[in-house]
Amino acid sequence: MGSKYPPSVRGCLSLWILTLEVPLILLFFFFTKYESSSKTQRELMGTYGVFQDVTVMAALGLGFLNSSLWKHGWSSVAFNLFMLALGVQWAVLLDGFLNESFSGTVVINLPSIQQATMSAMSVLISVGAILGKTNLGQLVLMTLMEVTAFVVMRMVSKQMLSTEDHTSMMHIHVFAAYFGLTVAWCLSRPLHKGAKTKDQMATSPSLFAMLGTLFLWMFWPSFNSALLSSLKKKKLAVFNTYYALAVSAVTAISVSALAHPQGKINMAHIHNAVLAGGVAVSAPCYQIHTPFVAMVLGLIAGLISIGGAKCLPVCLNRVLEIHDSCGVHYTFGLPGLLGGITNIVLMTHHTNWTKHPINGYQLLLNSGALSFSIAMGLASGLLTGLLLKLKIWKALHDQAFWEVPHLAVGF
Amino acid sequence: MGSKYPPSVRGCLSLWILTLEVPLILLFFFFTKYESSSKTQRELMGTYGVFQDVTVMAALGLGFLNSSLWKHGWSSVAFNLFMLALGVQWAVLLDGFLNESFSGTVVINLPSIQQATMSAMSVLISVGAILGKTNLGQLVLMTLMEVTAFVVMRMVSKQMLSTEDHTSMMHIHVFAAYFGLTVAWCLSRPLHKGAKTKDQMATSPSLFAMLGTLFLWMFWPSFNSALLSSLKKKKLAVFNTYYALAVSAVTAISVSALAHPQGKINMAHIHNAVLAGGVAVSAPCYQIHTPFVAMVLGLIAGLISIGGAKCLPVCLNRVLEIHDSCGVHYTFGLPGLLGGITNIVLMTHHTNWTKHPINGYQLLLNSGALSFSIAMGLASGLLTGLLLKLKIWKALHDQAFWEVPHLAVGF
Amino acid sequence: MGSKYPPSVRGCLSLWILTLEVPLILLFFFFTKYESSSKTQRELMGTYGVFQDVTVMAALGLGFLNSSLWKHGWSSVAFNLFMLALGVQWAVLLDGFLNESFSGTVVINLPSIQQATMSAMSVLISVGAILGKTNLGQLVLMTLMEVTAFVVMRMVSKQMLSTEDHTSMMHIHVFAAYFGLTVAWCLSRPLHKGAKTKDQMATSPSLFAMLGTLFLWMFWPSFNSALLSSLKKKKLAVFNTYYALAVSAVTAISVSALAHPQGKINMAHIHNAVLAGGVAVSAPCYQIHTPFVAMVLGLIAGLISIGGAKCLPVCLNRVLEIHDSCGVHYTFGLPGLLGGITNIVLMTHHTNWTKHPINGYQLLLNSGALSFSIAMGLASGLLTGLLLKLKIWKALHDQAFWEVPHLAVGF
Repeated sequence: MGSKYPPSVRGCLSLWILTLEVPLILLFFFFTKYESSSKTQRELMGTYGVFQDVTVMAALGLGFLNSSLWKHGWSSVAFNLFMLALGVQWAVLLDGFLNESFSGTVVINLPSIQQATMSAMSVLISVGAILGKTNLGQLVLMTLMEVTAFVVMRMVSKQMLSTEDHTSMMHIHVFAAYFGLTVAWCLSRPLHKGAKTKDQMATSPSLFAMLGTLFLWMFWPSFNSALLSSLKKKKLAVFNTYYALAVSAVTAISVSALAHPQGKINMAHIHNAVLAGGVAVSAPCYQIHTPFVAMVLGLIAGLISIGGAKCLPVCLNRVLEIHDSCGVHYTFGLPGLLGGITNIVLMTHHTNWTKHPINGYQLLLNSGALSFSIAMGLASGLLTGLLLKLKIWKALHDQAFWEVPHLAVGF
Repeated sequence: MGSKYPPSVRGCLSLWILTLEVPLILLFFFFTKYESSSKTQRELMGTYGVFQDVTVMAALGLGFLNSSLWKHGWSSVAFNLFMLALGVQWAVLLDGFLNESFSGTVVINLPSIQQATMSAMSVLISVGAILGKTNLGQLVLMTLMEVTAFVVMRMVSKQMLSTEDHTSMMHIHVFAAYFGLTVAWCLSRPLHKGAKTKDQMATSPSLFAMLGTLFLWMFWPSFNSALLSSLKKKKLAVFNTYYALAVSAVTAISVSALAHPQGKINMAHIHNAVLAGGVAVSAPCYQIHTPFVAMVLGLIAGLISIGGAKCLPVCLNRVLEIHDSCGVHYTFGLPGLLGGITNIVLMTHHTNWTKHPINGYQLLLNSGALSFSIAMGLASGLLTGLLLKLKIWKALHDQAFWEVPHLAVGF
Repeated sequence: MGSKYPPSVRGCLSLWILTLEVPLILLFFFFTKYESSSKTQRELMGTYGVFQDVTVMAALGLGFLNSSLWKHGWSSVAFNLFMLALGVQWAVLLDGFLNESFSGTVVINLPSIQQATMSAMSVLISVGAILGKTNLGQLVLMTLMEVTAFVVMRMVSKQMLSTEDHTSMMHIHVFAAYFGLTVAWCLSRPLHKGAKTKDQMATSPSLFAMLGTLFLWMFWPSFNSALLSSLKKKKLAVFNTYYALAVSAVTAISVSALAHPQGKINMAHIHNAVLAGGVAVSAPCYQIHTPFVAMVLGLIAGLISIGGAKCLPVCLNRVLEIHDSCGVHYTFGLPGLLGGITNIVLMTHHTNWTKHPINGYQLLLNSGALSFSIAMGLASGLLTGLLLKLKIWKALHDQAFWEVPHLAVGF
């Protein structure tokens, strides 16, 4: 299918992507400048370390996390880098334009690039749900749409619902998961049968996926503490993330065996469920003052994630006809939801003994921010999905995008 | 074999592991709290960098180091993460409980988690000797036993023999190597024939093992300098480790060719011998004041390691009937021994011109600490090995633990 | 071919390499000592982070970058580590000996090891052009020759043409590319037919090469800013490198599709062209004050690199009979040339509004430094190539160097 005019269509497509880079450069020309303030060496180096950790998570961790699907290994890693590079450029501009203190010039510094990287990660998470269903052109549109939706969501959440910077960023997991699922819902119906067989061929180069998982596992504390300002909160975030991840790793591996009738461990479960603790603790990590709460969260997240991996694909596939290629829903969606709710509960709970009273109105705002991020994910995902279904895009199998050498065996 | 009741046995096993996590969480609930003192940002970031390096070495380096055995790649990486996550939780508690200043509460901070990670690495080293001979339940028991033995060894060594923190930690290599070998001795007899054929199938996905080796090679200076307090010693440790590793890399690759009758290089030798310099220099690294001593140590360690790889498997296999799956003995054991002895010699040697006179008694104490760590490794390894041989554990082939997708071809 | 006396020849070779390590250790014994000055903890940690990034780029990034050639994966990674370890030792000594303030003793500190690592990277870049055409002994000679030539080039450039430390180091890309190409020119003629078929078997374990690319991509800002002294310049270097890399990643992936008649993407192009932005911006990175200039450089570099990958192999293979195994010319050579020229243009341009007037003489000096590095690369490459062609070296196929286990299938 679609073998009639691929050459010209694809040629146009590539040209279109390339010409997209030109207006981006022009926007940078007119609207940006580098920060010229003089920080101390110390501050720079501290920020630089965390900045690098986040980049490693985005480029390497999320890139390799989905590489276990045999047919899509190349696409996963290379397109991930492509979307990251594009998304970061767009997110820096948007973050500047939508900032309330914007006055004609966007000042670029290390924290702003770091925040843009984190925003661009929303696309890298979502793409796990639609891997193998889109071509490069569709991914470009999706990148621009999702980054825009995510940045707008954060700005609205910040200005209307007075959500903190950290909290609204940590809603990235639920936002991205539901965005990805909605897009997958729009795209997956005609491909449904093919998708099933594709899935069975999966999990071959699992060690690459494990590499991605490990990099995410190791650097997750940096991600969760990146946007917290006070040193005390940063430390709590690092500790809690570490303990939640440790417990969810232990839980994931043992429960994966428990969930199988013959006690076998499923490698695909492990790739995802090992990280569930980090997702679940992301929003409330600065509010937890004892390791055991983080550990309980990690335990529950691991259980939810493996449970979801066991039950959800069946439900989603049959009832909603959504084919979630890489398990975005139970890796990021459900644990993120758990984290969001925990965050609200802890905020309300803290009212009693802290000096900053949080009344019912505040509780409402917090719940509103979480719901808004889900709603925004669903709405913008639906819009994007509908756009991606337009006939302009030839829904070509993405492997056809690679020039494979003649004698290549395996991958 | 063992195909009669695996489902129920394995189900129980997983449930057992899961219920192990619950008392751990309860222990954390009753006995731990986060450190609340206010360090400066600078201190935190400095510690955080080294902490991350150690985590990378443990999760990624040691995980992938043993992944070259074709059948055990998945087990190596995933079970390594499992044991690390479990071991760290247990080691933090033990470190706190056995500390002399313990008064009901264990204070958790970044250095304590880092030290626990380093203690848990003892299990990750030992497991190289028994890869493919144990199931998940046995690994859990082994993790708990070995971490306990190692922490107890360090505490006794510290309080009875007044060994420094750094030195007793650096005995991890000999301790873990002899622990692993003793366990392998207990387990390997009935499996001996199968093990031989398994070994020949090895070295296929060698690039993954090389990845693990490289990460250990690159971050080893952080490991060796982690527990040193003074800045001057830290610097010496970094420099000496770097030079020892550089020389042992050159030595390993050239000697591997020299040791083969037709001058061929054995990839498995390289994975291990390249690191021998880092192991050998670990204990004395803060006492060496010229690069050339470190380089000589690296050269000797490389020679010993390759020599061991050539001769020892034959001796061990035939005489003692130990099957050392991944060469733990010549990677960590022998170079660690070399390092321990060098440390004692250098300490005695320094007596002459430093102001802290070390008399014969001190020399005795140092030798005692090294011997004690070996003895403790052998004794606790024997106990663990005997426990692991009990009939409760079905000694199932560990690959049977993985749910392999239908169409997966190699990897 | 060459199967007559390989055992003895190879045995000698290995012995020869090993005995090379002994005079190196003696040189360190007589001429080096560790720095004993007391820096603050902060300074050490800051330097240590960048030092580690550079090591990761050298050992892991450049090692895996070339691992996509199916037959040379092992050689690429293991020999890369070997040459790095050897090159660093030699470069530290040379840097010290050739320094104008040398007075009998080379003082070793973290910056000097870091600089030696960067010098040794010249060999790791060049070797991409001759992968699969040399044996271990030839690589040793090449390492010693190229590091010597590069360090001498930098010293002359510094003292005669008053080039800055940063600028002369950033000429590494053009120097190494032309050195490698000249050596390949000397070596490739007799092997030409075999080389063609080898190439078609390439790109199999492409994900490993992608891993190398990603590590280079992520840590390149550290490399470009490593030798800059002022904090302000460091920041500019980090920002500009980041933006150039982001744009060249987007450009590379889309143009690769555009360049193919059926719009397919070539993975080998991506491995290389993604990095072109980092190479192009390396020399002028501290002089660019707006992101858009860096982005334009990244765009042009990406275009040049893909264009070169499409057209150059044909020209070079047919006209000059050079077989550039891993595309060193269009990854490092051409973008490096672009960067060098941009640097000169920007320097001249800045004359107008900065307080340090750069007259025509200065312009001449800068152009001279760039030309000198190219000339030096060509001349020393020719000398090395002729030496490597001597009959003493049995030009054995390098895979024959590996002891491959019996049942290993692919990898």
